[in-house]
Amino acid sequence: MWNSPKVGILGGGQLGRMLVESANRLNIQANVLDVENAPAKQISFHDGHVTGSFKDPEAVRKLAKSCDVITAEIEHVDTYALEEVASEVRVEPSWQAIRTIQNKFNQKEHLRKYGIPMADHRELVKGTADELANIGEELGYPLMLKSKTMAYDGRGNFRVNSKADIPEALEALKDRPLYAEKWAYFKMELAVMVVKTKDEVLSYPTVETVQEDSICKLVYAPARNVSNKINEEAQALARKAVSAFEGKGAFGVEMFLLEDNSLMLCEIASRIHNSGHYTIEGCALSQFDAHIRAVTDLPIPAKSLEIRTPSIMLNIIGGATPDSHLKAAEAALSIPNASIHLYSKGAAKPGRKMGHVTVTAATMFEAETLIQPLIDVVDKMRAERPDIKTKAAASGAPKPPRPGLKLLEKTFGIVPEVEITSAHRTPDYMAQYSAQAAARGIKVIIAAAGGAAHLPGMAAAHTALPVIGVPVKGSSLDGVDSLYSIVQMPRGVPVATVGINNSINAALLAARILGSFDPAIQRKVEEYAEAARAENMEQKGTKLRELGWEKYFEQM
Amino acid sequence: MWNSPKVGILGGGQLGRMLVESANRLNIQANVLDVENAPAKQISFHDGHVTGSFKDPEAVRKLAKSCDVITAEIEHVDTYALEEVASEVRVEPSWQAIRTIQNKFNQKEHLRKYGIPMADHRELVKGTADELANIGEELGYPLMLKSKTMAYDGRGNFRVNSKADIPEALEALKDRPLYAEKWAYFKMELAVMVVKTKDEVLSYPTVETVQEDSICKLVYAPARNVSNKINEEAQALARKAVSAFEGKGAFGVEMFLLEDNSLMLCEIASRIHNSGHYTIEGCALSQFDAHIRAVTDLPIPAKSLEIRTPSIMLNIIGGATPDSHLKAAEAALSIPNASIHLYSKGAAKPGRKMGHVTVTAATMFEAETLIQPLIDVVDKMRAERPDIKTKAAASGAPKPPRPGLKLLEKTFGIVPEVEITSAHRTPDYMAQYSAQAAARGIKVIIAAAGGAAHLPGMAAAHTALPVIGVPVKGSSLDGVDSLYSIVQMPRGVPVATVGINNSINAALLAARILGSFDPAIQRKVEEYAEAARAENMEQKGTKLRELGWEKYFEQM
Repeated sequence: MWNSPKVGILGGGQLGRMLVESANRLNIQANVLDVENAPAKQISFHDGHVTGSFKDPEAVRKLAKSCDVITAEIEHVDTYALEEVASEVRVEPSWQAIRTIQNKFNQKEHLRKYGIPMADHRELVKGTADELANIGEELGYPLMLKSKTMAYDGRGNFRVNSKADIPEALEALKDRPLYAEKWAYFKMELAVMVVKTKDEVLSYPTVETVQEDSICKLVYAPARNVSNKINEEAQALARKAVSAFEGKGAFGVEMFLLEDNSLMLCEIASRIHNSGHYTIEGCALSQFDAHIRAVTDLPIPAKSLEIRTPSIMLNIIGGATPDSHLKAAEAALSIPNASIHLYSKGAAKPGRKMGHVTVTAATMFEAETLIQPLIDVVDKMRAERPDIKTKAAASGAPKPPRPGLKLLEKTFGIVPEVEITSAHRTPDYMAQYSAQAAARGIKVIIAAAGGAAHLPGMAAAHTALPVIGVPVKGSSLDGVDSLYSIVQMPRGVPVATVGINNSINAALLAARILGSFDPAIQRKVEEYAEAARAENMEQKGTKLRELGWEKYFEQM
Repeated sequence: MWNSPKVGILGGGQLGRMLVESANRLNIQANVLDVENAPAKQISFHDGHVTGSFKDPEAVRKLAKSCDVITAEIEHVDTYALEEVASEVRVEPSWQAIRTIQNKFNQKEHLRKYGIPMADHRELVKGTADELANIGEELGYPLMLKSKTMAYDGRGNFRVNSKADIPEALEALKDRPLYAEKWAYFKMELAVMVVKTKDEVLSYPTVETVQEDSICKLVYAPARNVSNKINEEAQALARKAVSAFEGKGAFGVEMFLLEDNSLMLCEIASRIHNSGHYTIEGCALSQFDAHIRAVTDLPIPAKSLEIRTPSIMLNIIGGATPDSHLKAAEAALSIPNASIHLYSKGAAKPGRKMGHVTVTAATMFEAETLIQPLIDVVDKMRAERPDIKTKAAASGAPKPPRPGLKLLEKTFGIVPEVEITSAHRTPDYMAQYSAQAAARGIKVIIAAAGGAAHLPGMAAAHTALPVIGVPVKGSSLDGVDSLYSIVQMPRGVPVATVGINNSINAALLAARILGSFDPAIQRKVEEYAEAARAENMEQKGTKLRELGWEKYFEQM
């Protein structure tokens, strides 16, 4: 079978475990190098595993002898051992890529050559307070003091708010090779999983990551309220950055979206990544499937990396006690549409990643609603941790509903976005709003206008979304002017026109359109129709029969 | 953790393997009783497995000692051993249920008491040709001669076309306990996975199964062209049938849909089932997740059993040579949106289930299109099998496109269903058609009508789908009669009205509605708009500039 390659994996934590899940389904033997009973080894019974540390050259040599290709679930491996075995076994990605990436300063120096936008940074050569103070003058405060090596999940980082913090910062990171980075004022953190194959650089869509205590807390896939342009730019930037390195496999790319909508690379991981866990449920091929295929030269259809259903991933983090994270897992069992992944790491330490949950739904709004009770549980767990100075949980809470279109909101649970624009008075904004609507996840536009009512038609001209037009009755012509202006569109640019002033029908039509693809909404549409039917037949009918037609119509 | 129950599984084939996948993700230890290195054991490394046969009472006793609950991936187990250990360990489902179900005659006799509709059948007490001939007189030919026990995937069945076949039939099934069943003329085979928990009987949606050589070939989830009413009736029948048995877990229920749209139970399996494999990708909780949760009394949110994305499952069956099935697996690697599951059973025998592939897509039509090349591959593999008398592959081929609405079809790749009905001339058919449309997977209705144009509004009154109305210009009133009849609907029943005679815009609007939920269609809508824009600006604009406005308008 496709020559049944044996894949060696340095590291058997949760990332290795999920790689093994994928290898298992393709009947590819995965030989794991890690301690006995590491999470990845628990789900793979054969005699090819190696017991030891992925930092031990002897163990790496032993693993290499039994495999056709070697990869790593972590970048903090012994790249000199990998360099040595690369003469006898394929190493993917290359040891050069891993070596450059595992040193974050070198990673950035390397990426700078390829014109990748990044925060400005300076190496600390001597590591003295004076040197850092000089850099502080240059880059401004706050700045991030960072360890070049062994930095992950916020470890090895120290925020320097002013010159006064310098001694504490240097003490916290003493004996580590350091660099300083200019503070990035970003409005959002984005991430893209990139997959390098033997002849292509593919990418998954852009997702939104929410960090807490410097650890990934939530991932929204696709990123919310991000235009298609930014989604594509972020993917292009991620692919360009990963192209700067040799070798095959999945790479995680983290980015900042700045206030001016420009992108800045944050960092790259030379491996599968927490920000890509959503792909297990969210895509036809997960990042783990893709990584196994990439390093064994098996095909990866690009379409299989698209998001098939909006997904939210929530990490389950170790809490105050060794089993408090299980409360979150237990709560997740009752969350509709929640898929649970526990890593079988045994007892938890506070802040340790113990598992994750992915909630999928027909719409991001529904997924947000479903997962909210679970976010409340993990926020409560975090509040009980003695190692954290608790602050109010900020992220993930649903935004307050915007005003307007009560019917949609109250009856159908659809929270509409309401804007005021005019085809004649704000033509540019109208055009921009319409053009970006689809990328922002909007599915239907309702446009109401009166007189020479050009708004619905112009909106339709700028979007591929269905546009519903509501003719508004003005002071003259009884609204027939608006009706004709809206309904008589040229061939090629349709507007779904409803009756004059009939905004109720516009809302209902929008609900029907959404309901075609969301059974929950469709049921509500049916219930609404049923209620209207009942009201009409029973209440009015009963009254008519009770009163007789003469009295009934007298009372109307 | 939730008392970490240990689950014992009788049988470690592919069903056991997929159960272990689910148990792994919840960190529940699954102890498998089967031969060494059985598929399920390969992905579960701990010392709780038992080597032996699930038919050996001693092995069952040994398994029972190490578990909190015992279940089975197959119904052909030693239920007397289960009865014995039931005093010390929970057995789910109950040994009584498994014992009754594993004997298909007893299963049907039992279900008959609960009023479950089934094909008429007769026990063969003596098993002689005369006895069977008498039954043939009574039930008519063809009839199915069936073994009561050890019958699966068509084994233990013999079709008796006439009295002349009786000697051959009895010879083929000699030494087995037999019964005969009246032939069921069905138009479709349906299946429902039912999950019995400690306090509920839940069901997954109704799926369509396609059998070939008496083995499941394809599963379409949800069933195609089946009304919501039948979908619900089939689920209700399945739940009712499973309710007749004691114990928790997943049950597979196979049914026939007869010509008159009535349902008839075919058979029940007391376990996870091939017809439910699609749930791994198609639903938030798979049948394997649900079974593990049911037997360990963990919660199962009913919503998690809904289909989140249309799915088609294709079995990979052993072919002419021990590795020919790998050709199918290899072909599947290049199919977009295909998730591959290989069972690691080693060398294949012809007809043995070696793996399966599930293709998901935004629409069933897209899934059908994506999977077709793979169906062609397995059809070719089957044609090469010496053990099969090849006949033309019938199922799975896409239907020829129906005529009409070329724009939708040619430009957007949307094959519309075209019907003629009238609100005034065929009011009942119109109502029925509209009412059933949503359940049949239709997403948008376009209704064109002239004069007192009631069709779009009446259709809208009978469906929750978006209805697009096209006013047709009749012999008088310039079509304004149709426009007003269609657009001026009462509040509560919207019709998306386009301009008079503007069927192009109706088609485009439908494409935009579908495109809101299908990125491929949305891209085509954008391309169409872009092309129109280009044509308008470039061609007409260029001509205008070339000719000057006077000549240009002269030529118009």
